[in-house]
Order: sequence, then C-alpha cells, then structure tokens
Amino acid sequence: MPLRFLTSGESHGPALLAILDGLPAGLPLTPDAFDRDLARRQHGYGAGPRMKLEHDKVQILGGVMGGLTTGAPLALRIENQDHAKWRGKSVEPLTKPRPGHADLTGALKYGYTDLRPALERASARETAARVAIGAACRLLLSQFGVQVGGYVCSIGEVSAALDDISLPERIALAQVSDVSCPEPEAAGAMRARIEEAIHARDTLGGVIEVLALGLPPGLGSFAQWDRRLEARLGAAVLSIQAIKGVEIGPAFANACLPGTRAHDAIDLSADGSLLRPTDRSGGLEGGVTNGQPLVVRAAMKPIATTLTPQNTVDLATGETSPTRYERSDFCPVPRAVVIVEAMVAFVLADALLEKLGGDSLGEMLPRFAALRQARLADLPMDNTAHTWWPE
Amino acid sequence: MPLRFLTSGESHGPALLAILDGLPAGLPLTPDAFDRDLARRQHGYGAGPRMKLEHDKVQILGGVMGGLTTGAPLALRIENQDHAKWRGKSVEPLTKPRPGHADLTGALKYGYTDLRPALERASARETAARVAIGAACRLLLSQFGVQVGGYVCSIGEVSAALDDISLPERIALAQVSDVSCPEPEAAGAMRARIEEAIHARDTLGGVIEVLALGLPPGLGSFAQWDRRLEARLGAAVLSIQAIKGVEIGPAFANACLPGTRAHDAIDLSADGSLLRPTDRSGGLEGGVTNGQPLVVRAAMKPIATTLTPQNTVDLATGETSPTRYERSDFCPVPRAVVIVEAMVAFVLADALLEKLGGDSLGEMLPRFAALRQARLADLPMDNTAHTWWPE
Amino acid sequence: MPLRFLTSGESHGPALLAILDGLPAGLPLTPDAFDRDLARRQHGYGAGPRMKLEHDKVQILGGVMGGLTTGAPLALRIENQDHAKWRGKSVEPLTKPRPGHADLTGALKYGYTDLRPALERASARETAARVAIGAACRLLLSQFGVQVGGYVCSIGEVSAALDDISLPERIALAQVSDVSCPEPEAAGAMRARIEEAIHARDTLGGVIEVLALGLPPGLGSFAQWDRRLEARLGAAVLSIQAIKGVEIGPAFANACLPGTRAHDAIDLSADGSLLRPTDRSGGLEGGVTNGQPLVVRAAMKPIATTLTPQNTVDLATGETSPTRYERSDFCPVPRAVVIVEAMVAFVLADALLEKLGGDSLGEMLPRFAALRQARLADLPMDNTAHTWWPE
Amino acid sequence: MPLRFLTSGESHGPALLAILDGLPAGLPLTPDAFDRDLARRQHGYGAGPRMKLEHDKVQILGGVMGGLTTGAPLALRIENQDHAKWRGKSVEPLTKPRPGHADLTGALKYGYTDLRPALERASARETAARVAIGAACRLLLSQFGVQVGGYVCSIGEVSAALDDISLPERIALAQVSDVSCPEPEAAGAMRARIEEAIHARDTLGGVIEVLALGLPPGLGSFAQWDRRLEARLGAAVLSIQAIKGVEIGPAFANACLPGTRAHDAIDLSADGSLLRPTDRSGGLEGGVTNGQPLVVRAAMKPIATTLTPQNTVDLATGETSPTRYERSDFCPVPRAVVIVEAMVAFVLADALLEKLGGDSLGEMLPRFAALRQARLADLPMDNTAHTWWPE
Repeated sequence: MPLRFLTSGESHGPALLAILDGLPAGLPLTPDAFDRDLARRQHGYGAGPRMKLEHDKVQILGGVMGGLTTGAPLALRIENQDHAKWRGKSVEPLTKPRPGHADLTGALKYGYTDLRPALERASARETAARVAIGAACRLLLSQFGVQVGGYVCSIGEVSAALDDISLPERIALAQVSDVSCPEPEAAGAMRARIEEAIHARDTLGGVIEVLALGLPPGLGSFAQWDRRLEARLGAAVLSIQAIKGVEIGPAFANACLPGTRAHDAIDLSADGSLLRPTDRSGGLEGGVTNGQPLVVRAAMKPIATTLTPQNTVDLATGETSPTRYERSDFCPVPRAVVIVEAMVAFVLADALLEKLGGDSLGEMLPRFAALRQARLADLPMDNTAHTWWPE
Repeated sequence: MPLRFLTSGESHGPALLAILDGLPAGLPLTPDAFDRDLARRQHGYGAGPRMKLEHDKVQILGGVMGGLTTGAPLALRIENQDHAKWRGKSVEPLTKPRPGHADLTGALKYGYTDLRPALERASARETAARVAIGAACRLLLSQFGVQVGGYVCSIGEVSAALDDISLPERIALAQVSDVSCPEPEAAGAMRARIEEAIHARDTLGGVIEVLALGLPPGLGSFAQWDRRLEARLGAAVLSIQAIKGVEIGPAFANACLPGTRAHDAIDLSADGSLLRPTDRSGGLEGGVTNGQPLVVRAAMKPIATTLTPQNTVDLATGETSPTRYERSDFCPVPRAVVIVEAMVAFVLADALLEKLGGDSLGEMLPRFAALRQARLADLPMDNTAHTWWPE
Repeated sequence: MPLRFLTSGESHGPALLAILDGLPAGLPLTPDAFDRDLARRQHGYGAGPRMKLEHDKVQILGGVMGGLTTGAPLALRIENQDHAKWRGKSVEPLTKPRPGHADLTGALKYGYTDLRPALERASARETAARVAIGAACRLLLSQFGVQVGGYVCSIGEVSAALDDISLPERIALAQVSDVSCPEPEAAGAMRARIEEAIHARDTLGGVIEVLALGLPPGLGSFAQWDRRLEARLGAAVLSIQAIKGVEIGPAFANACLPGTRAHDAIDLSADGSLLRPTDRSGGLEGGVTNGQPLVVRAAMKPIATTLTPQNTVDLATGETSPTRYERSDFCPVPRAVVIVEAMVAFVLADALLEKLGGDSLGEMLPRFAALRQARLADLPMDNTAHTWWPE
Repeated sequence: MPLRFLTSGESHGPALLAILDGLPAGLPLTPDAFDRDLARRQHGYGAGPRMKLEHDKVQILGGVMGGLTTGAPLALRIENQDHAKWRGKSVEPLTKPRPGHADLTGALKYGYTDLRPALERASARETAARVAIGAACRLLLSQFGVQVGGYVCSIGEVSAALDDISLPERIALAQVSDVSCPEPEAAGAMRARIEEAIHARDTLGGVIEVLALGLPPGLGSFAQWDRRLEARLGAAVLSIQAIKGVEIGPAFANACLPGTRAHDAIDLSADGSLLRPTDRSGGLEGGVTNGQPLVVRAAMKPIATTLTPQNTVDLATGETSPTRYERSDFCPVPRAVVIVEAMVAFVLADALLEKLGGDSLGEMLPRFAALRQARLADLPMDNTAHTWWPE
C-alpha cells in the first residue's frame, strides 16, 4: 500500500505534525489548501469553548517546492495555539480517570503516575493532523474527478430523512449547514436537541455518512484478506476517536433483508455502460469498488466528558469520586464529518495509487483514463469452455 | 504487529493454505485442534448442499515438531474435497456476473475474460483457512485464560433477547444450537424464518456478536491511528466475505444516547480492583482494552446468490439476462460465527504478543501474570504538580 | 510495496510452502517453469550427498487457473522427499550446537530443549521455496525484457578475471559451468580448490555476482529511507542463509578510490539517449535504478558444518565436545547463485509493480513502454529560475 | 516490528522532521540528548564549508512530557539554518545532472523539469534526522547496558591496523579523533590523504565499522526471511546516502577462508557461561544475536560532487557539459560513523522491543534480566529421543 502516514503531538504540546509518505510529484499544493477542511473541523453548532479559540493553520515543512509536491514526504505542522499557556506552567495532578476516555487504560498500559499524558495523546485534538492529511489526499483524488464529501444523518435520536436528496446535493447542502445536515427540518431539530443536551449538562453522539463520487471500479482486492477495501476503510474510520461503529452502505439494515432485496441488479445502458439501478452494497462488491458511489457510515458515541459528573475513583486516594470536568464539546458530530472524510480520502488515495502506480501526476493521469467506467467494451469475454486445472 | 498471515487457494482448486507467521514456540498443537472450529463452520441450520459434502481437515505442513510449535511459521493445508471433480474437466464459460459478488468487479480489475477466477478466490470457501488460523490463535489465547466465543443475535428481522443470559452462558448455549443462538425461543423463530426463506428461494443475513472474556487491560494503543484496537478489529472483521458492518459494543445504539448513559462508570471493589458496573464501551476505551469483556458485533448481508434469479447482463452477448444459480447457502449466519471469532482471535493474539513480547510460551507466561487485572495497586499515582513542558 | 511472500516448512518436514501475494493476473505459469531454477539450486560441483537425492518439483496450489495467474496469491509446494524417512521415526537428541549455525541462538531464543527444531527451520533447505518464488518473479520480469542472471566470482581465494567477458555472456557461460563460473580457467582452478577442501574435510565460501539487464530507470526512491533500492536489495540478499555481506557494484573497492574515478559520467548518444560509459555505481544512483545494469555482489561464508569437527559444548552434559557431523555440502557457492538471483528478482518485480501499478499484465505492458530508456526527450527541462520556497 | 520512523524535509527547506513511533514510556529524554550525536555528524576533518555553518539542534515536538517519553510518537524537528537564504529567493535552474547523485534518476522518476527537487530530498542533509532518531534509540539501548559505537577503518586506500586495540577502546579513541580513527598513526595518514584529495580537487570514501556491545542473545529470527537480523541491519545501513556495501563481521574476507577458520568455536567458562574465543560471525548466527559483539561494516563511496568537474549533459540544451560544483564535502567518512551507528541502534532497539514487548521501561527492565547471557543453565536439554513428525 503505497501511501502511509504518521502523526505526532499532544493536545497542549507545541504542535501537531503529520508526515504523509507516498504522494506523487506534480500535485499543486499550498498552505491554504488545508484551511477550509480545518475550519470545518473547528466550527459548527455545539462546539465547546476550545473550538472557538483555535484557528488552525497548516505550515508545510516538506514535500512541496515551488508550489508542487515533489514525491518527497509531505510534512505538515499545526501549531497548538494555547501551548503558550502550558509551557513552563505547573499543572495540578490528574488522578480521577474519566469513564469512556483513555485515562485509565493509558495509565495501566504505559505505567503513568499522572493521567495527563493519556489525555494529551488520546484526545481528539490529534484529528486536526488527520484532517490535514485528508485535505492533501482529497486534492489528489480531485485531480481524477473523485469527490469525497459527507454529512450528518442523525444526532442523538433525531435523524434526517435524506432519500429525496441526491448524493451531490447532500454534500453541498451539508456544507452550508452548521450541523452538517442537508435536510433543513432535521437540521432544526438537531440544533434544538443539542441545545437541550447543553442545558441538561449532557453530550450527544450521532451517525455520519461519507460518500465518494466518481470512483473508478477496480480499487481494492479480494485476493488477500487485508487488501479488501471494506477492511481498509473500516480500520481507517474506526481509528478515529469516538467512532465505534462503521458500515459500508446500510449494512446493519441490509442484515434484516432477504437476499433478493439487498443487492444491486446489473443492467445495460444504451451507450454500452453497465448500470446499477440501486447502490445497496455501498459501492463495494467483493472488496473492490464497483464504480457506484461509495457510502461509508460511522457511529460516533456521545463525548465522554459531561458537565454532569460521572462516577469514578480517585487513584491517589483510593476513594470513589465524581469526575472533574475538562473543557470539552457538547456535540462534536457536525465537526467530525470532515474527519471521517479525511480517513476515507486517505484510503481511496492509497487504493488509487496502488491501481495506477507511478510517481507523478503526469504519469498517473493517462493511466487513469482507461479505468473510468465499467463498460461492456472493457469486458471482452472469451466465450469458450476452459479446463481450469489440468489433469 | 508480531503476527501476520496469508492465505491462498481457490474454491475448487487443490487446496487452501494458510501461513501464520509469529506464533511463539512451545504451544501444544495437533491437527485435531482445528476439527471443532472447522466443523462449526460447516454444520448448521440452513447450510447448502456443498456444506454437507465437505468434512474439512487440517494438515500441518510446518511450524510444529513433536506436538509443539517451534516459532517457525505455522503452515496449514485444507484439501478441497471436490477438486477431483474439477481437475481436467472442461467447464462452460461464466459470463453473467451475479449482483453482490466479485464477479463483475473482479473481471474489471484483473481483466478476466471468464468470470470463474473471480468467484474462485473471492468465495467464502477461503474462510476455512481463516478458521484454521483462528483456532491456533484461540489456543494461544486460552493459555492465558482468554476465551473467544460468539453467537447469532439476529437472522433477517428475527432477533434474540439476550439481556438475561450471562456472557459465558451465551457462548456455551450457542454451541449447542444449530442456529448458534443462545436463546431457544428466538432460535426456533430463526429456524422458521430460514425455512421460509428457502421456500421463497431467497437468502438471509443477520447480526453476529463475538466476545472475548478474560482479556487483560492494556492491549492496543492510542499512540498512533493504526495501533488502535478498534481499527485492527474492524479491519479483521470487515475483511470477512459478506460482512459489511462492524461495531464495538452497541455503537450504533449508543450513538442515539446521551453521554451520561453511554459510558461505564468506574467503581472500586472491596479487594482493591476497579469495577465497571456496565460494559457500554464494549471493552475498549481509547483504543485499548480496559479489562471488561470485548464485544464485537458484525452485520452479515444475505448471500447474494439466490435461487430466485436476479437481473444481470450476459457479458458475452451484451444482452440482459437472469443470473444463473451457483450452488450456495440460504443462511450462512450461524456458521459464520466461528469465522468472526477467528478474526477476533487473530487480532487479540497479535495484540497480546505485542504486549508480552517473547518467543516462547515459557517466556510469555510469567510476563502475563502482572497484567491480570486493573487494580488500584497497579496505578501508583504521583500526586504532585508537574511542569509538562519546560519553559 | 505491492509484492510480499512468506515461506514455511522444515528441512525434513512434509513440505516447503511459499505464498507470493501481489502478482498481477495474466502471466502464463506452469509447474515446469520452476524446474530449471530448482535444478540449478541442486546440481553443481561440490554438492553434498543430500543434493543428489533431491529432485525438487513445484506443485501449484493456488493463484493459477487455466495456465495463467489470476491475481490471487500464488501458492507453491515443494515436497521434502526424505520426509518419509523421518515420519514416525524416533530421533536421538541433538545437544551439541555447531558453531556458525542457529543451533545455539535458536535454543536460547525459543527455549528449545533439543537443538533439532533450530536446524530444521534455519537450514538452507528453505531456499528451495525462495528459488520457486524467484522463478515466478523472473518470469514476470522477462515479460518486460528484464533479465536476471548471475555467476560465481570467487571460491575461497580463487577468483575469476571477468573484465573481458560481456555481462550477457557471463550469465550464459555460467549456466553451462558446473561451478557457475563464466571463465573456464578460473572454473578449473575452482574445481581443484573444492576437491582440495573435500580432501581436507573442510568447506569453502565465495563471492557471487547477480546482474539485472534491461531495467528501466526510475525504480526505487530516495523519498524515504526504506524505499531506497539499495536497502531493499540488501535486506533481500542478506536474508539468505550464509550470505553475510552485500554490495551494489564494487562498493568496497570503490571506497578506496577518489571521487573522480568512482562515478559514471553522463554522455549523449546520437539518437538522443543518455549514455553512461561506465557502471561503477552498479546501476543505482540515489536509491533509484539509472537504466544501467544492476550489479549485486554477495559474500557467502564457508558452510559451518565441516567434516573436521569443531569445538563445542554438549549442553546435556556440560562437557566440551567435538561437533557431530550432519550431512552437508562442501561448497554451496555455485548452487547459491540462483538463490541470490531469486531474491534480486523478487525485489525488482516488487519495484516494477510499484512503478507500473495495475492488476494484470495487459494493464502493465502499455504503461511500461514509456519507461524504457533515459532519453533526453523524456526530460523536458523548464529552463527558468524558480522560487522554491515562497516568502 | 514495533518501532518505525519516517523523516521529512529538504536540504534547504524550513526544517527536517522525524517521527519515531513505538518507543516505550518512561525513558528520560531532553533536547540536549541529541547534541552530542548531531555535533559528531557535523564536525570532523575534511568537512566542507556547509558543515561549519550548521549547529544542529533538536526541538522535541511530541512524545515527551515532564522529561520522560510517554509512549506517544517522538517528534523531532531540526531547523535548516540556511533556509532563510532560500526563502523567497529566485534560484537559477539546475539542468546538468551530476554523476553519482539522484539528479538524473530523480528527474526521470518524478518528472522534474528542474533537477533541484531531486538534490533537495536525496541529499545527505536528511541524515541529521536519522542521527536524532538514532540518539533516542541509543538512549533506550543504554538503559539495558547495550552500547553502540563506531569508527573509521579506512579512508581511500589508507587503512588502520586495529587488531591490537580492544573493542571498547576503539569506540572511545575514535571519539577523540577528528577522523574518527582509533589508531593514531593511521589517523595521521588519513588526514594527510584527505589534505591531498582536497588539493587534487577530489573526494574520498572509506570503510566504517560499527559495534554493539552488551547485546543479549536471541534478538532477530530465522523463522522468516525478513526477520533475520542481517537483513534488517543490511537494509538500515544501505539506506544511508553513499553507503553501497555492508557486511556482518568481515564477510568478504571470510568468503576466502575455509570453514574451519571462519566460525566461532563454543567453549565453557568456569562459571557456566558459554564462551566464544573468536567473533568471526560478527555477532549473528542464523539471523539471531549470539551474545558476542555485533560488528557491522559499511563501505562508503567517495562523494560524487568533486571540485574537478565530471562529464555530463545539460538537459536544457542537449549539449555535453562539465558538472557545476554544488558546495559539498571532501571526505564525509569520519562524520558518517554516527549515521551508521544511528541506523544500527534503530534496528537493535526495534529487535529488543520485539523480544521484550511491553510499553514502558518499568515493564521492560525486569523482563530483560533473564536474557543477559548465554549460560548453560538457560539451556536445559531434554536428553531423550523424539519423534518429531508422527506417523
């Protein structure tokens, strides 16, 4: 898998870094290419006070010269603007692990004697680096006409009815909604529900849907278990903080349907291209893209840090105790859309590079032409009998 | 990640192989260790005729000497018993791709001129090799008191109410149920539903739950995105044929709940161990096991091959056509439980080896003792202020 | 890196296996494609008695249907013909570790209580599986006009003067020499030296040179440390049993020369292609192929098992003791040429797949055309000043 | 393999970065821990003018809190001090590829229209990031009593006679020599040779030897080809710019010796530990450390950039032309010792983590105790016959 990345950095440390290794040369890339996605991660209904403080900017530290990627690793730095307040400051100990966070598991794993280091790395602050990675991958994909976009399907028990909105419209409408929801009525109900949760000193989760439009067929593989695109997308999305469930298309709903209603018939259009009247499989068949829209759905849990304290144990005293509140969000779901998009874009850019090979955009673009669509003419069948295994 | 495996083999080729690299030395292992799991994969309500033909047996071709693993790669071979019928036989061409299968995506990807090679490798026959891998991993885990087991939660729209059955009982009861369902009444309804689907010449999917009991805390990590255990479990489970959704604990249900009701409070027992009255997080917090039961849920789509034909296109003639039936199952969900267990066992064995290091069981066992449980005594807090970042 | 393989099997176990994952579809491959390379590994001057017993044959267990690769993992099985003698047989304990073997390190690492398991996996018998892998990779490379071949440069202190023999001739002549040496006079001296060593109850090592001819420029990369082709070739060759040194071109000799005499000037031919009058860099500049012949040199140590006993300790008694002789070779260098070729072919096939991408030969071949040669026309310079980093 | 790293950055870009993922928690680490190694890379006889300009300092951007590693990825930044001069500056085109560099291969691979991007990433400037990585790994190893150190064996045709100097002394003496050579007389001759090369407007290469002392036996493995420590060390060392050859112990010399003189007898000391009177195998037997000093030798080519121009082609004009001089070194061999040490330290830290597992120094240290030395008592032989493969 040609593309890989590592991130580093703590929530209140000097900076987040990301190194993305394997991008081709020749991709136009400037620091402002990251602004829009980083802003989407920071602004939205229900953002906590921290979000309002930050105005993340990417500094490119490697991999771009004269405005073009060079094939060298792309290095991105995002400053932590409130690091200044933490530098040189004495911080009181943190000894009460918050349920649902890495506080306790981190201390057990790494032998911490104060819970702060667990919070600092496990925190969703790290996703800013991923969003930056995703913006670069999205830019690459866009050179091939592939669009990655997403929206909120539900917040708490409020869900949106989206069937009547086309997929491209959903993406477009979500981008002008402060709850990232394409359906205005549902968006209103979501806002009200978030307001209610804030007043109840509680938090909310939800379901996010991310689409990739314009994908060629043939990305991914069934040849080996870890090359299946479901597996690679699943890992990428489940690696996001607070995402605990993922499905390709409406998989849990499909599990209730009979086989005759859960698949996508194959039909032929007048121009020789193969048509799929439905997209129940979410764009993947046998671990491979089929040219239909890719649909990835992610379940985000409500943020574990609630203003209403939860029960815990003070590890310093051995006494039970309410949790102490650490500044946090009430409902991060609208702002998490761009994070899921980022991870999906990363996997797709990786799979596309695998399919096309090559080291520069100039080398890849002509190779791409042949993949555009599943057409009958691309499937010349040899209509004779075969002896598959000789005697 | 110390453990890795590759499988090979086609559905009607001479044999399936699996090479599992990274098992420690000193694990007792004989060919019959695989029998029970392989039989669970083959027998159950709703199995198609092929399942009845096969009696899979593992032959160990490497990695075991004198009844013990040696640290060398474990090599497993499972004969395809009906290969004899395919050897030297001329097979009529397959040119009508079945919706929901890899027939079409495989041909587009690999340039096949007959769809047979796509079916042969993409088929769920390959999961026999994974079940064998899983049986070896399960055996390793059992040396450390970790039990992996699973059951069917729902088939089609019929779901089982399991809340009143303890987790160990669910595993035990599922193993004596021909639909792998611990709850007898639901099991009856499932059988009836399968019978109905068979008569309707249709197929059914469902939801599978797999548990790991006795896991130590501290497996996995939040340090880097691809080390989070959610990501690794998600990839493993979504790599299984026909599994299109996965969640850790009831993630999609939790996404509808407020934060105060979706996490697991931390309490203290009389003996100094930390208690979690609930397991809403499914055993993982921050990408790391927390010592609670691990709960992985998988959505399996209904088998794409239905006796009722679906619409497709004959790629040889360019005409639309009904699909041709290839021998298949009606409801593989009960038999898929052991496959999901296998992939979960693989990920957990890998994570345990990562935590313990070492090259032999004798080296690992004493290291394991210290990990057993999250106790207050294992968390000596340094209750003073820290300057985390110097001036 | 798209290509990967695992091998399994013990020296006297039932069989060796290899799974090669990532080969494209459409490559013609039959079991006899492996015969020539496997025979080269077994026959040659100085082979011990074991070599004469074996006539290795590959059975293809996966990845090939109807005589063509399918993109599924290639699975190869080589029977161990003398396994029959070991099956069910009680074998006396082995407790005297032989210097230079894995006997002692294996026992320390894996906790063996008998040294046999160390020998069984560490033995060079495993290289038969690698030679099979290499034969498949060589076949792929040959579709692109790349030839991999090698020869013996020296055995013990006897070395061949090869400067007057062209590279293709060296490969051709070595294949008809029982000491794999292209230069007849040196070959005679090598035979005499081997004879002498046999009479002295001793063993001999030597130096092997492997070439790849017809490589396109641009394989490998300097973008990240582990993508440099020197690193990947070095790992592959040093992973071979008894190979302890490797160099790209005459690196140790070049380390003694001044810079003006250690590099390859760039010149222009009449037809616009760039010429390199020398190949001192061994075909790689900056981790990337430059279109010149690739030259990889490997130092093989003399076999550690000598008829003349060496000093060791009987671990059962704690007494010093002479080693016990295990049947072995006197000089494996001529037969090891094909093993080094195999590992070089694997790395090059991997790098070529990385460059070309794609899933079938049909997809790769047109992409290859553009890479054929470093021509001026392929290097359109933008002869203006650049601001590489904006203010 | 638990440890991994990526570097990024160009030679004249804003900064070099390195992310090292997989270090355990609890390792004391401050920014000045890197100073000594970075200085060793910059100062020495024969350094070019650039070297004198730079005073590299590491800034820690992640993975350390309160002076201790946390298990989170270690992020290191080294500023390029002359970036200021390049920022916003218009740079004349570079169109004459220098022999021996990546100029031409980079342009062919990545489609550059100016050779500058190839130089910028392929340059040895990147090794500063590796030296920083190595310093962290060295610090980890030192916690377990493992020392990594090296020296220059030869420069050009001048080599040092080191047999009479003990291994620890060689390391110590090299550190006070401006040519990193432990033997004063040879050091003098090396200085004179470098002086001569400078006057001849030429450059020099040489041979570097790196040792690891205090290694436990049992690191690495023969179980799979890519787990052999020779392979992993070989890849790491050959990934260094200008290193084109590597050997474990005196491998090329051993290839000329008979088997009875190329291995290390096993003997027993009075206290029950196993003795090896020699170290001809360089510390590795069968891909695994044997507890003897590890000896890695690297051949460095003379720097390709010589003041005496070499022949090339101006790609913009299509005319042959002399190379243009880019500021460079005359003999980087003394300063490259610490780079080779860094890569060896990385591989050994990785192999040690693999053996010990664990997530914190506190968890690893007790596990280490058992590995300290190959003693008879650690090798309890089961002196009975075995049936290795049942009937």
